Amino acid sequence: MKWNELAQEPCSIARSVAVIGDRWTLLILRDCFLGIRRFEAFQARLGISRTIVADRLKLLVEEGVLRRAPYQDSPARHEYRLTEKGLDLHPVVMAIVHWGDRHYSGEAGPPLLHRHKACGHDFHPVQACSACGEAVEARAVETRAGPGAVSPSAAG
Amino acid sequence: MKWNELAQEPCSIARSVAVIGDRWTLLILRDCFLGIRRFEAFQARLGISRTIVADRLKLLVEEGVLRRAPYQDSPARHEYRLTEKGLDLHPVVMAIVHWGDRHYSGEAGPPLLHRHKACGHDFHPVQACSACGEAVEARAVETRAGPGAVSPSAAG
Repeated sequence: MKWNELAQEPCSIARSVAVIGDRWTLLILRDCFLGIRRFEAFQARLGISRTIVADRLKLLVEEGVLRRAPYQDSPARHEYRLTEKGLDLHPVVMAIVHWGDRHYSGEAGPPLLHRHKACGHDFHPVQACSACGEAVEARAVETRAGPGAVSPSAAG
Repeated sequence: MKWNELAQEPCSIARSVAVIGDRWTLLILRDCFLGIRRFEAFQARLGISRTIVADRLKLLVEEGVLRRAPYQDSPARHEYRLTEKGLDLHPVVMAIVHWGDRHYSGEAGPPLLHRHKACGHDFHPVQACSACGEAVEARAVETRAGPGAVSPSAAG
């Protein structure tokens, strides 16, 4: 399969990774959730080339994950804000952060703490079931072909 | 920043994406959670070169996400199984799948359905708070530097 065919695959994760399955894109999204909005800030924090930052932001805007919003008139300047579709990526980013905290933060502990404003406590994300509300572990999940499956072997 | 310096960054997501922030790696992990274990099966499902599959599996084994387990003696053959650290990636993969189901599955509906064996219902993952158990939205989270932060600007 060629990379640019991935987005056509009948698989929700293939379509998703065609948009967000890139190291720099994931780091840009992390920064978006930390309140970073301006091109120069993304670039300075990641320390990568303007081209890489511009390419990633362009795709995220095209896909409706970010939107460009003017913040200055002359000269015209734009910043990048998460759309509702972008905000829906919060569980993805938090799940990756939590996995990193668990397996890579070492003795120093996690570099960032997250507080749930509704209850006031520091927390980590737990994967819960939309039907019963209980925590869901990998071994408790059964998968079968859904309505959008093309064939059993292509399902994923 | 050079890509190979990412794993040294004091940021749990930077360390994580140094391992899993790759489109093919995410698709291989998706397949692992669907029960795929053999090299030829990964390659056939993804339709990519043996080199790409071998590189990704090698990194995942080195990082302790997968382990090689023999399934045949002569000739010796190995399969790839998720370790506990790998199983901890289930919320990451499920969150990506759910985002894809929501934004890319279109009229046909999701290609895969997931059933929570404990309650018997089809479900999607909900990000819940480890402290209070309630669902957590992006806007309800406040972030601050934790013990592993190097400096406020480097924290992430």
